[in-house]
Amino acid sequence: MSDFAEPLARLITEFKRLPGIGQKSAQRIAFHVMRASRDDAEHLSQAILDVKDKLTMCAVCNNISDAELCQYCRDPRRDQKIVCVVVDPNNIVGIETTRQFNGLYHVLGGALSPLRGIGPEQLKIKSLVDRIAKGHVEEVIVATNPTTEGEATAVYLSKLLKPLGMRVTRIAMGIPVGSDLEFADEVTIWKALEGRREI
Amino acid sequence: MSDFAEPLARLITEFKRLPGIGQKSAQRIAFHVMRASRDDAEHLSQAILDVKDKLTMCAVCNNISDAELCQYCRDPRRDQKIVCVVVDPNNIVGIETTRQFNGLYHVLGGALSPLRGIGPEQLKIKSLVDRIAKGHVEEVIVATNPTTEGEATAVYLSKLLKPLGMRVTRIAMGIPVGSDLEFADEVTIWKALEGRREI
Repeated sequence: MSDFAEPLARLITEFKRLPGIGQKSAQRIAFHVMRASRDDAEHLSQAILDVKDKLTMCAVCNNISDAELCQYCRDPRRDQKIVCVVVDPNNIVGIETTRQFNGLYHVLGGALSPLRGIGPEQLKIKSLVDRIAKGHVEEVIVATNPTTEGEATAVYLSKLLKPLGMRVTRIAMGIPVGSDLEFADEVTIWKALEGRREI
Repeated sequence: MSDFAEPLARLITEFKRLPGIGQKSAQRIAFHVMRASRDDAEHLSQAILDVKDKLTMCAVCNNISDAELCQYCRDPRRDQKIVCVVVDPNNIVGIETTRQFNGLYHVLGGALSPLRGIGPEQLKIKSLVDRIAKGHVEEVIVATNPTTEGEATAVYLSKLLKPLGMRVTRIAMGIPVGSDLEFADEVTIWKALEGRREI
């Protein structure tokens, strides 16, 4: 017999399925929801369904969008000449928080991984090439992760896009700001040395 | 402009209102929900509404319940002679996880706190007395927190119930199991000394 009444036990189970939520957090959140107003519970409940029902993929860049074009692709103030290629829509969030990038994006939906059977056809690479073929783009920044898969994807894109007259660049690898060399692995230190810039 | 499409931004905001969920966790969970199946989102969404709609208070002990009587009050195998008084339904969960207690419960819904205007009338004390007046109960364990308010409540209940011929007991205060005297405050150490038992 569970220690909770059925609806509560079920909500706890549902919350535990979410990333980073363990038994204790799930209990605390479920009790919170139970004590919240019916209105608050409804808002949360509806918001959950809405992200499934009202979101789609941007027809141009594959970002998450609530319209045919995402907020970046439909914004005329964004620089149309520079496209930042990312693996996942939430990478865009990270880049936007810097407020330093004003170009457009292209979401691949993954990185090349022969071992996991992910080749160029599984990624949104053809639509990237088609997009570039239309002419405006001058630079493609490859912002995939500095992992084997991310690197392989970057090299692949570079070979594919450079012949089209593009400038293809890669985000810098190095020591994270505020961190310490002591905590950095040897490959990162090597990349940091290799990527050194004059001061 | 938010970095998220509206339905996603709204879900993140909703998750951030839950206890222990910050911006980063809310984003991670919202992306997870967005990627989950429509079915999974529906189950979560429905579970949230169900804890509001399908749960009620046990007519006897005020525990959360999906029926008129909670799972403990309707279980004939529970010892009807001993009632553990707690402040909050989730205290019951903590006690049940020990699997050492087989009596019944009574949820007060708070602790006495003159400063916050919580007197005996604001708590489910009358229903506890009525319940005891019916005759079966022999011992009342007061499991309120070892705080000023919890202690005041315990003393109040003791004065109220002892004249009815009850044995009124209080949970032990002392050093938490697995902890260290070094981390215990002086009052806890004093309580641990005071509550010492022969070995």
